[in-house]
Amino acid sequence: MNDGNQDPSTRDCARLLMSCQDGPGIVASVTAFLHARGANIIQADQNTTDPLGGEFVQRIVFQMPGLLDRLPALEREFAGEVAERFGLRFQVYPAEIPKRVALFVSKIDHCLLDLLWRWRRGELPIDIVQVISNHPDLEKAVAGFDVPYVHIPVTKASKADAEQQQIELLRGRVDLVVLARYMQVLSSDFLARVGTPAINIHHSFLPAFAGAGPYAQAKERGVKLVGATAHYVTEDLDEGPIIEQDVARISHRETVREITRRGADIERVVLARAVTWHCDDRVLLNGNTTIVF
Amino acid sequence: MNDGNQDPSTRDCARLLMSCQDGPGIVASVTAFLHARGANIIQADQNTTDPLGGEFVQRIVFQMPGLLDRLPALEREFAGEVAERFGLRFQVYPAEIPKRVALFVSKIDHCLLDLLWRWRRGELPIDIVQVISNHPDLEKAVAGFDVPYVHIPVTKASKADAEQQQIELLRGRVDLVVLARYMQVLSSDFLARVGTPAINIHHSFLPAFAGAGPYAQAKERGVKLVGATAHYVTEDLDEGPIIEQDVARISHRETVREITRRGADIERVVLARAVTWHCDDRVLLNGNTTIVF
Amino acid sequence: MNDGNQDPSTRDCARLLMSCQDGPGIVASVTAFLHARGANIIQADQNTTDPLGGEFVQRIVFQMPGLLDRLPALEREFAGEVAERFGLRFQVYPAEIPKRVALFVSKIDHCLLDLLWRWRRGELPIDIVQVISNHPDLEKAVAGFDVPYVHIPVTKASKADAEQQQIELLRGRVDLVVLARYMQVLSSDFLARVGTPAINIHHSFLPAFAGAGPYAQAKERGVKLVGATAHYVTEDLDEGPIIEQDVARISHRETVREITRRGADIERVVLARAVTWHCDDRVLLNGNTTIVF
Amino acid sequence: MNDGNQDPSTRDCARLLMSCQDGPGIVASVTAFLHARGANIIQADQNTTDPLGGEFVQRIVFQMPGLLDRLPALEREFAGEVAERFGLRFQVYPAEIPKRVALFVSKIDHCLLDLLWRWRRGELPIDIVQVISNHPDLEKAVAGFDVPYVHIPVTKASKADAEQQQIELLRGRVDLVVLARYMQVLSSDFLARVGTPAINIHHSFLPAFAGAGPYAQAKERGVKLVGATAHYVTEDLDEGPIIEQDVARISHRETVREITRRGADIERVVLARAVTWHCDDRVLLNGNTTIVF
Repeated sequence: MNDGNQDPSTRDCARLLMSCQDGPGIVASVTAFLHARGANIIQADQNTTDPLGGEFVQRIVFQMPGLLDRLPALEREFAGEVAERFGLRFQVYPAEIPKRVALFVSKIDHCLLDLLWRWRRGELPIDIVQVISNHPDLEKAVAGFDVPYVHIPVTKASKADAEQQQIELLRGRVDLVVLARYMQVLSSDFLARVGTPAINIHHSFLPAFAGAGPYAQAKERGVKLVGATAHYVTEDLDEGPIIEQDVARISHRETVREITRRGADIERVVLARAVTWHCDDRVLLNGNTTIVF
Repeated sequence: MNDGNQDPSTRDCARLLMSCQDGPGIVASVTAFLHARGANIIQADQNTTDPLGGEFVQRIVFQMPGLLDRLPALEREFAGEVAERFGLRFQVYPAEIPKRVALFVSKIDHCLLDLLWRWRRGELPIDIVQVISNHPDLEKAVAGFDVPYVHIPVTKASKADAEQQQIELLRGRVDLVVLARYMQVLSSDFLARVGTPAINIHHSFLPAFAGAGPYAQAKERGVKLVGATAHYVTEDLDEGPIIEQDVARISHRETVREITRRGADIERVVLARAVTWHCDDRVLLNGNTTIVF
Repeated sequence: MNDGNQDPSTRDCARLLMSCQDGPGIVASVTAFLHARGANIIQADQNTTDPLGGEFVQRIVFQMPGLLDRLPALEREFAGEVAERFGLRFQVYPAEIPKRVALFVSKIDHCLLDLLWRWRRGELPIDIVQVISNHPDLEKAVAGFDVPYVHIPVTKASKADAEQQQIELLRGRVDLVVLARYMQVLSSDFLARVGTPAINIHHSFLPAFAGAGPYAQAKERGVKLVGATAHYVTEDLDEGPIIEQDVARISHRETVREITRRGADIERVVLARAVTWHCDDRVLLNGNTTIVF
Repeated sequence: MNDGNQDPSTRDCARLLMSCQDGPGIVASVTAFLHARGANIIQADQNTTDPLGGEFVQRIVFQMPGLLDRLPALEREFAGEVAERFGLRFQVYPAEIPKRVALFVSKIDHCLLDLLWRWRRGELPIDIVQVISNHPDLEKAVAGFDVPYVHIPVTKASKADAEQQQIELLRGRVDLVVLARYMQVLSSDFLARVGTPAINIHHSFLPAFAGAGPYAQAKERGVKLVGATAHYVTEDLDEGPIIEQDVARISHRETVREITRRGADIERVVLARAVTWHCDDRVLLNGNTTIVF
């Protein structure tokens, strides 16, 4: 638990994410509902995925005195009085409860350490509660951050057992799994049972160079920019909804080793942005793509 | 008049820009007002400039059958029923009426031609009704675009007369003046009398290198990036509210001439973005800064 | 012929592009050879593709009085005295002779007009001698630039004939073919017979979204950046050596139409850079990749 | 000492930085000199600051068996046989001897930790031998990196004494001083006596927003991008030769606190690049600007 992350401006605040088939009167109903309960709308961002018959999507941040106590009733009433009428799917997240996050890593440290460091200095609206690795290598580097580091080796034979151990550590204790350069594929069974979203960082500008060794592939193909992609993990490797991407320029002078270093700088900021946005409840799934408010 | 610019999706649409001291109930009142008149909110973006006691700012795009005929009454009623209560400043712009734009230019063509070309291919939501230059040089280049080109020379002695001629050409006939590399300073008298906003493109990343010869200044100082800034014109040269900026990387290898070419690519896109956003009613003044929705 | 393109600083200048298996003494031999003939080296850039047993690559710009007259002898002597000894492949290009360029286009104008406009204002070190289109649409837009526009329709049945006409127009009269959004695939027979390199602009960040409709593919996949790629044309569509790439950020708010507009700004600068670099003799082929000095 | 930084490819390699009034024969003489001693040129980059009567500048990386032992004689001979003739200023740096670096910091950790972390993972071609701070706050964060942390408080009254202590710690023991967010101005006396270059990171895109509180200044002025600048420290605060700069986009939605976080990501990469380039002997001073090869 990192008290520095307690942002005073999140007190009594909630984020409401909504989507449904577009139609008239939705915004008026939602805002009237909130206003009637003394909520003040601090920020709102609304859009349709297509002006003609698209999907209505909206994110509202509101402040309401006594939010945490009133939340269960609020959700129930919103479902009955507003959501049902418009076929609205919605979720409300209280801003003052940081999401609990588990970090998975193998041997490469830059994404892991960057998240830990941002968290320690109060940049990330999360609690990092667990680091899980299939290697012991990074235990010492993590030690200074007061987060338990568990080494769970994974081989072909032990994979099912290893995932079972992971599930036992995580289920009900975390809200998000982040693969910070974890070089193992999670089984669809794991994804179904862990009960939280998982975000992965892939070291290429997807869909280019999916799979292994993307920087070597990039050098081989002679591209002039390399990139990184943070995406939700789905059963299909490197095919999940993309949350954020960025790129850096390279030249013929750089070896694969130098490109890898250059790319690492992009990977860590792209992953940090994706985790921040997810945990600020800014990301809404829309089919296999994301809407980032 | 360029029929290609008539975007079907703007039919019956209006953009409502609002700002006031933040407080509860504003959004609910606005949306209830619109809903009661059968308006459908297509897009909305709301924010406060500061969570504690800041300014409420919002842009709403709505569609309402028969908008153009109903607009005068709508504005009157909105003023009486909503705006007055919250001290709300607001403006409503019908999206299907493109803004009429005059372009000012001296001898350098890239910003001018880029705007004309984007307009001709239907990229800009405007009507370009006049080009005014203090030089005759670009008349031929403009000829193909079917826009009147007026040459009004400006000397120290003739400046007041020249501005008078400009005012007579423009007043009541345009909604926006764009200085597309116009190398004369407009007097505060002109700005007051022309009755429209004016947007200028300055060829530096302001506030760095205000004034003359910014690329030479940039070379002299040895910066590693050069930029361009589109801003509203105010009495204070290069000090007006910034709408958009961008930069490009340069190296020691480039001469001032090459930097100037490199910068030109940035200037034209920065100016095109600023003009587009202004004419899409996305820009709200906030003191000496802008909010770009 | 555009006299404005005659850059005085190119007088008596040549660019020497070289590559061979790396080894000691190459640079010393080359520079001694040039010095013995009174040449002054203005710029040089040398590299190996791999420090251990890689390829030596170098670009030298030198100035030598009477260059154009002396060039044939110079090449002969360089081949005999230097190149043969090191197995050096080389080419010398006199900088004061601009490359003759043919532009191919279909109906979309932004890349074509951008090249024509840059050429007219003296930005491109080329002569544009011909525009060829499989459609008549852009004839009027090209008219102001004093370049012949030839409409050669292409259907499945007429393709061989059409290419024959193109070859007759071009062979021996141009040094470079640029496909500025030309929506036809050139046959390998054409590429072999035209006798010049060809540069294409593809509207995606290759290798992502090769083939048709890349912006729609990008929207579908939900990427956060779209890009453009300029590459040499080879028999394998969208697989040729990449010269330049760049990207622009998009969001969920943008439709395919808006993404297409955004991408157009990237396409034209990427293509202009690639053409400039090729015509400045800065691009060396290295397998299926390029070295851009 | 970090053995991981020993890059095998630097063995027997040296970097030669040269500048002088341009003229014929310089490159030929330099390369003949190196070739005669069995040196192999691995990389070379040469330029003139101005084609007409500018400054010749060149960086050569060469490999020569037994370099370290032969270096003193090589320098002497090069001075006598080549440099004197052309008025050439030069320096030779053996690549296998990493520069010894001292880091100065106050309370803000991101630049400091980023350099330490890059160094630990073998990204930086340096040895970090000392951290000096005017505050005790970051001692614990540095502890894991096995670098001595010395707390030397600085007040107006104690400044001269403090600088004397710093000098005693550093003189003859370091090759570079890096101000990684050190909130004290170094006196010109210190700069003269420490005998090494010093690199500072300033958290703005200089020359915009020099002095204190640049992010607050940026917010106040309403710029659309914020930046960071790494520069050599001179007597004139924020006026030294710029080595590297970069920027990040911000919007009206971000508070000064959020802009500060966003900027921190830029600061650390800009400083890391500047330190890397300096320590790779890629940076040549040219008046008050730098040439970065």
